[in-house]
This record gives sequence, C-alpha cells and structure tokens, in this order.
Amino acid sequence: MREYKLMIPGPVEVSREVRETFNRPTVAHYGEEWAHFYLRTTERLSSMLGCTGQTFILPGSGSVALEASASTFAPERRSLILNNGFFGERLYNIFSRYSDECEKLNFEMGKPIDPDVLNELLRGKRFDIVVFTHVETSTGVLNPVRDIAEIAKSHGALVIVDSISSAAIEKLDMDSWKVDVVVTASQKGLECPPGLGIVSVRSENMQEIRNSRKRSWYSDLSVWLDYFEKWHDWHPFPVTLPTNAIMALGKSLDLIEAQGLAEREAQFERTSQKVRSCLKEMGFELFTSRDFSAHGLTAVNTLGKIKPSELVKFLKEKFSVQIAGSLGELSSFLFRIGHMSTEQIKTSNLLTLLVGISDFLRVKGFPCNTQKAISEILEQ
Amino acid sequence: MREYKLMIPGPVEVSREVRETFNRPTVAHYGEEWAHFYLRTTERLSSMLGCTGQTFILPGSGSVALEASASTFAPERRSLILNNGFFGERLYNIFSRYSDECEKLNFEMGKPIDPDVLNELLRGKRFDIVVFTHVETSTGVLNPVRDIAEIAKSHGALVIVDSISSAAIEKLDMDSWKVDVVVTASQKGLECPPGLGIVSVRSENMQEIRNSRKRSWYSDLSVWLDYFEKWHDWHPFPVTLPTNAIMALGKSLDLIEAQGLAEREAQFERTSQKVRSCLKEMGFELFTSRDFSAHGLTAVNTLGKIKPSELVKFLKEKFSVQIAGSLGELSSFLFRIGHMSTEQIKTSNLLTLLVGISDFLRVKGFPCNTQKAISEILEQ
Repeated sequence: MREYKLMIPGPVEVSREVRETFNRPTVAHYGEEWAHFYLRTTERLSSMLGCTGQTFILPGSGSVALEASASTFAPERRSLILNNGFFGERLYNIFSRYSDECEKLNFEMGKPIDPDVLNELLRGKRFDIVVFTHVETSTGVLNPVRDIAEIAKSHGALVIVDSISSAAIEKLDMDSWKVDVVVTASQKGLECPPGLGIVSVRSENMQEIRNSRKRSWYSDLSVWLDYFEKWHDWHPFPVTLPTNAIMALGKSLDLIEAQGLAEREAQFERTSQKVRSCLKEMGFELFTSRDFSAHGLTAVNTLGKIKPSELVKFLKEKFSVQIAGSLGELSSFLFRIGHMSTEQIKTSNLLTLLVGISDFLRVKGFPCNTQKAISEILEQ
Repeated sequence: MREYKLMIPGPVEVSREVRETFNRPTVAHYGEEWAHFYLRTTERLSSMLGCTGQTFILPGSGSVALEASASTFAPERRSLILNNGFFGERLYNIFSRYSDECEKLNFEMGKPIDPDVLNELLRGKRFDIVVFTHVETSTGVLNPVRDIAEIAKSHGALVIVDSISSAAIEKLDMDSWKVDVVVTASQKGLECPPGLGIVSVRSENMQEIRNSRKRSWYSDLSVWLDYFEKWHDWHPFPVTLPTNAIMALGKSLDLIEAQGLAEREAQFERTSQKVRSCLKEMGFELFTSRDFSAHGLTAVNTLGKIKPSELVKFLKEKFSVQIAGSLGELSSFLFRIGHMSTEQIKTSNLLTLLVGISDFLRVKGFPCNTQKAISEILEQ
C-alpha cells in the first residue's frame, strides 16, 4: 500500500512518540495494571472534556460511539437532529434506528446551525434529545455548541454532541456548557491511529444509563457500567480492547496535557487562520465564514477552476501528500485539508501541501504568487 | 506497561512480519487502492471459511461482530442459544436483546454440546435461529459444529456460529457444513492484534440481510451492504477502519495461505496433543476430553494442588510469560494456556511456559519429572 503524508481530516499524521507506543508488543487487556491504565485514561479524557461523569472507550470507529449514545439514551424518546451536512445525516440515520420518533431540522450546508431557529421549533414541539455535530467534517463548519446547548437545555432536552472532529482541537466544556453526552474518536484531535470510539457522560446523566430500555448489548452503556462495577480491578469493560491503540492514546494525552489545552486550542486557531489566508491568496473561496470555521480542517471551494479529484491525485503523485475531496454533491467543487494534529500543522508539512497546491494551479494555468501566499505560514 | 510473552487464548503473540506490517504508518481508509485491498481481504477470509457469500470486517472486538449477527438476523425471530460456558452466556446476553424470544439450552461446562439433546428439543419446539460457540474459550471445549448444524438445519433453523477462538485453527467449512453465519475476530487464530470483528454470511442468506428489520445502524449488515454497493470502488463500508489492523490481517493471511489450512489445522492438533500429554505427565487433569478439546487452547484443572492465580503471577514474574486464569466459578481451580498462533506454538515459547509450570510445581512441593513431561515437545 502506498503511504502518504496524511493531510486529511482524519486519520491524522501522528507523532513519533505516539507511533512508537502504538508499535510496542500487544499487551493483554486484563489484569490490575491494565485496568488501572484503562481507567486512568478514561479519567484523563473526562478531565479534558470537562466531563464530571464517566468516559467509556469502545473498540470501533467514532460511529460505534455514536451508536452507543443512541442505543443508551434514545429508545422510547423523541430525538431532534440538527443537520447541516453528511455527518448530521449520519446522526439522523443512527438515532432514527433507536428513537421512537426522530426528526431532522435542516440547515444549509456550509452554514452553522442557527440556535434561534432551534428555539422557535422547540417552542412549538417537545423533543427529549437534541443531537448535532460540533464540527461538521464534510464542510468544516464549527457549530455554536454552547448557544445550541443553552437553548436545548432551556426546553428540557438532553444534549448529545458529536465531537469526533473537535475534541482536543476546539474549546469544549461539558460541565459549564451543559452538554450531557459527548462522542469522539481516536484518529483526529486525539492524534492516534483509528480504532477507538469514546463516549463521555455527565454525572447528571449517569443514572439514565441504568434506566434506559435495553435495545443492544455491545453499544449499550449499561453493559459497560456493569463490567466497570463488577470487574473493576481487572477487566472494567465487557470486551477485548485494542490495547495498542489505547496505549497510544495514553501517550498522546501525555503530549496534549504537556502543551496545555488552552495553548493547544489557540495554536490550532492561529494555524487555521494562516491556512485560510494562504488559500484565499491563491484565489480560492473558503466554504465557511471565519466565525464558524473549524480550526482542525478547512473546506475549499475551487470555483470551477480546477477539479478537486485532479488536485488530490496530483498531490499524491508529485508530493506524496494526501488531502480529501468531499462527499456527495459537494465533491465536484470542494476539497478539504486536515490541520488537526501537531504533525499536520508542522511548518514543513503545511508548506509541502500549500506549495503543492500552488504548483497545481500553475500547471492548470492559474498561477498565483506563492511567496506571498505562504508568507504567513513561514512566520509561524 | 510491563510486557509478557502472551501464552493466553487471545490476544496472541503475533509474527514479526505481521507486527512490522501493523507498525507501518497509518494509511487512509478510502481510495481505490484501499477499497481493493479491503475487498480482497474480505474475499480471502470468505475463502478460508468456505463462505460462498460475503465477509464484513467491522472495527471493534469479536463481540461487535456477534452483535452484528444478532442485530441483522435475530429481530422478530425466535433464537435458541446452546450454552456450555461463559461465551455461550454472552451469546444469550447479546441475542436476547434482539430476538423476540430467546431461550438457552444449557450443557455442562467442560462438556460439548450434545446434538441429540438439541434434536429432542427442536422436535417439540420451533426456533428460527440456533447459535453456539465453535470453541468455548472459557473451558477449551470444541463443540461438534458439523453435527449440531446438521440437526439445526434439518429443523429449518438458521445456524450462527461464534468461531472467535476457532477460525484458522479448527476445521470449519461453512458451505459443506451448512453454517449460515460465522463470526470471528482478529486476535486469535488470525494472529493479529485485537481490533477487528469479522462476520461471514453464506450466499443463501445474503438476501435476508436486506429483509431484516432495522434495529441498529453500526451493527446492521444492511448498512454495510449499502456502502459495499454504493461506494464500492473507494469506500465500500460505512465507517473509518483501523487500517493498520487490516493491513496486518492481510499479511497474516499471506502466511496462513502459504502454510495451507489443512497443514495448519494438523499442526495445531499435533501441538495441542503434546501440550496435553505434558500437562498430564505433570499431574494435572485436563478439563476437556480428548475428542472435544479445542486445538488452540487447553484448560487445566489444578485439582486443588495449586492456586491458578498464584501460578499466573509466578510465570509473569519469573519467566515473563502470561497465561490466563479462568472466569467465574471455574477460576479457583482452572488455568488456561493459549497455543493458537504460530508464535505461541514455537518450541522455545512452549518450553519456557511448560518448564515454568513445572518449576512452580517444584516450589509448591509437587515436583514432577520435567524431562519426561517435556519430551514430546522437544521432539516437535
């Protein structure tokens, strides 16, 4: 399999330290030392997310963690999905399998969810659960979680946030923002290889895990809670865990904690602004407005000048760099860049990518002032 | 985390080649080259299992693949679980969440499932699905899949087999044995790190995937089939895959195919007989009879002479070797050894383990003739 520098919005390039930890011989997923390590890792994730309750690490992709949130909290309830892209649709697909009633409130792609529209809807109709993405990975929109959660809570709804592309990148504080459940995964801001889904539940909602109607097993957090209690000291989870990935996650948390979350968030924000400036200087249009742009990825509108699929191919072949196209109807004019890991935002990697894009523009007859375009990146 | 030679019934020690492949930089889970590799890997698994239909690789543990089989086939049906141990109980726990009606037919732990008892039951009561383990990992029993499947099919039931501890170790041919669904995982006979659940479905049952009532999303194979069809050439599955683990699986299949399945099965059978002889010579009793013993693990009855937990600790500390105790009521007198991977059955690893056990017996005042006990191992 050919290998590329992964400048996609997940899986991300990971640091040497994380890679080396991942590459250690596999250890067993049980015993006192492992149980302690697993539990400590879940507590560190809770602390990072401002979660006063409990965090669960599930073998699988981010979607298995979304399924766990749906399977545990949605049965016999009415769910409202706030949808502004492909992964909003996915939330609807998952929650509609578990909720008694599941509706979608659609917003324009590339635009943020509007809390006022939500407020209007909730005035007229009662929903038990409101679910939405923090960052919609298909378009790079950053949704205003805090404002949305405030509205949803004021109408008595449980708030579930898909933070797969935002955790450890964007500001997020479950406790003060009153977000009840956060779902994420290992291969984006947590800077690990893929293979782990993560669900964090506020202390106020832990009891509901027990009360929920049992609709599944693997993805039912009450099963996870049972093992947490009955096998606490040697196997506090129900299934075999991919221990290499969890070891890597522990190492990554070392690095994230050493940097400090606030500095880390600021760094991703600064870098994303520089990337945006550079791409605008090259003559592209950005798909999201500055105030509602994710800081871990950027979606770029080619305005019909070039085909995203050709750019993706060119960068792979000439620069060994991989970026992402987009999904569905967006794929004819949108490409996406990931800058959500410490490796991805290294000057050398950003430069290779951006100079590569400018080279493609030159080849295609749309030359730009490369020196000017990359000037901010060089100053970082 | 301290690392040990893993002589447990999964996760297993893996070969250098598989480890090196696992350790390569992460590749993206989409694109033509990846889609081709993923699909080719599923076809090789199908071929290995005698599956005429389709195989799905799901991120997660073996249990997520069990959940997929339950979620896809059990809703609105009556399921019968044939239970002779901890993992039979697990099948009941999972299937009872999805089946309209779910019953357990219990057999003694350490003894195989008796097809005649099943036949008797099915004469009096109709079940749509019969589910059981091929190898019950908690006791090392090898259940007579072929005979059980024949009885179940003669009563018109769908046959689902948990082959987590048997695939690529024990003889298994879905097509000629008329097994409809086989579930397995990466970290046992497939000799990879943990992180992948695998479900294989016979061609006769592929249509039922479509017909089933949708009860979940991640674990619903109809979702997987949708992506297989609509995104076939670049992303033929719905979620982010742990690409390192699947690359490792591809490498492991290279090695398994190079050896040949028949020779491989024979080798595990020969080795397991030698291990059994050795342990008997040391004065232990084996928990399973010769004809119904798994060839990838052995459960050993200490007859009250020694405590399994003390032996486990001793081997870790003095020999850096890890074996497994047992679960629940068995844990006071049973320990388990894994010999289900090419690394685990290397003479050097078996010797370290077995000499270590004999050393513990000596320390505890039950010396044995080590030379005689290990003689068969030395001849391998």
